[in-house]
Amino acid sequence: MSEHEISKAVVKRLPRYYRYLGNLLSAKVERISSNELSELMNVTASQIRQDLNNFGGFGQQGYGYNVKYLYNEIGKILGLDKTYNMVIVGGGRLGQAIANYVKFEKRGFSIKGIFDINPELNGKLVRGIPIRMTEEMPKFLEENEIQIAALTLPKEGAEAVLPILIDNGVKAIWNFAHTDLKVPDDVVVENVHLSESLMQLSYDLNHRKIKEGS
Amino acid sequence: MSEHEISKAVVKRLPRYYRYLGNLLSAKVERISSNELSELMNVTASQIRQDLNNFGGFGQQGYGYNVKYLYNEIGKILGLDKTYNMVIVGGGRLGQAIANYVKFEKRGFSIKGIFDINPELNGKLVRGIPIRMTEEMPKFLEENEIQIAALTLPKEGAEAVLPILIDNGVKAIWNFAHTDLKVPDDVVVENVHLSESLMQLSYDLNHRKIKEGS
Repeated sequence: MSEHEISKAVVKRLPRYYRYLGNLLSAKVERISSNELSELMNVTASQIRQDLNNFGGFGQQGYGYNVKYLYNEIGKILGLDKTYNMVIVGGGRLGQAIANYVKFEKRGFSIKGIFDINPELNGKLVRGIPIRMTEEMPKFLEENEIQIAALTLPKEGAEAVLPILIDNGVKAIWNFAHTDLKVPDDVVVENVHLSESLMQLSYDLNHRKIKEGS
Repeated sequence: MSEHEISKAVVKRLPRYYRYLGNLLSAKVERISSNELSELMNVTASQIRQDLNNFGGFGQQGYGYNVKYLYNEIGKILGLDKTYNMVIVGGGRLGQAIANYVKFEKRGFSIKGIFDINPELNGKLVRGIPIRMTEEMPKFLEENEIQIAALTLPKEGAEAVLPILIDNGVKAIWNFAHTDLKVPDDVVVENVHLSESLMQLSYDLNHRKIKEGS
């Protein structure tokens, strides 16, 4: 089956497979059956077989999956065999938190620049990267080939910088601002809406099973 | 239809409705038709009607939805008509970023305590809240009625503090650690897995439509 036919639902689950396979790899596990993986991940074995069959032939009947091979193949599908240059727009605590995620760097996401409009942050080093003023961004983007921008600033700011990013070739927006950004067809957006996630938690809290007797 | 029959898919969409309705409310829009809302939210009008019909009778044929009423009703369903006490475990940049989201406080999520194991952070004020040492947490949880804990620390730490939180009555975990936490039936977890979100973006970047001629 061609990679292009993988359903969105399966794609959404791939990073989680990747995480578990990475943990297995670190624990030096070489092979794993769909049943074992099922127990570990709390997903049915048939779902696992269905999902992983999308990529064809990773598993062998009665023999299990080769952890390293599967990990690498899923990594390739997710585009983790390449490297990406990234900027962070918004140098506040959230932007700094993201700049400090060493794991991203290891996965090939290399943070090249951090921008903010607050002059007090100008030149401040975050993991060795100086925060620059947003007005310097167009020139910076011209001189550096940046594919990904993380937007860790309020929505008005995010909407204001978006055209600058797109005009300068940024193709992927990791959006933490509470707004749905409108982008051209060849630009992709992944939203992390923290308030909405907290509302989901609040819904679940109010609709959870109550333990008997408590 | 009873509230308990609302499908997970609809619930997942409620925070987004809530955000748009809140924006409309701020813009002093009193009524909106499903067609207008459809255009604004880039969702089909029939989807909107189906989703909102779950709550029964908000819309009137040819008259549209009462924005304020719908906003309030969805807020109630999401549990935003109540207040919650919250602790943040992990006082690093991410924990501080969350503590500084004023919006959460306005929505009824009141941050009562921030904890970390790093002695250098001991007593540091984040929006007026002193960072406390994690060893003080059990006593703090006994003395304060905390419903929600945000875990903004590495996975080993998250797994270590989880039983302490649960034993002391915390019922909702907002989990930023890269691990799937195992909790009792009466405790709910909402995950924010930033690396997985970034992988999703990288997948989309590699499978986006390429503009013709570029």
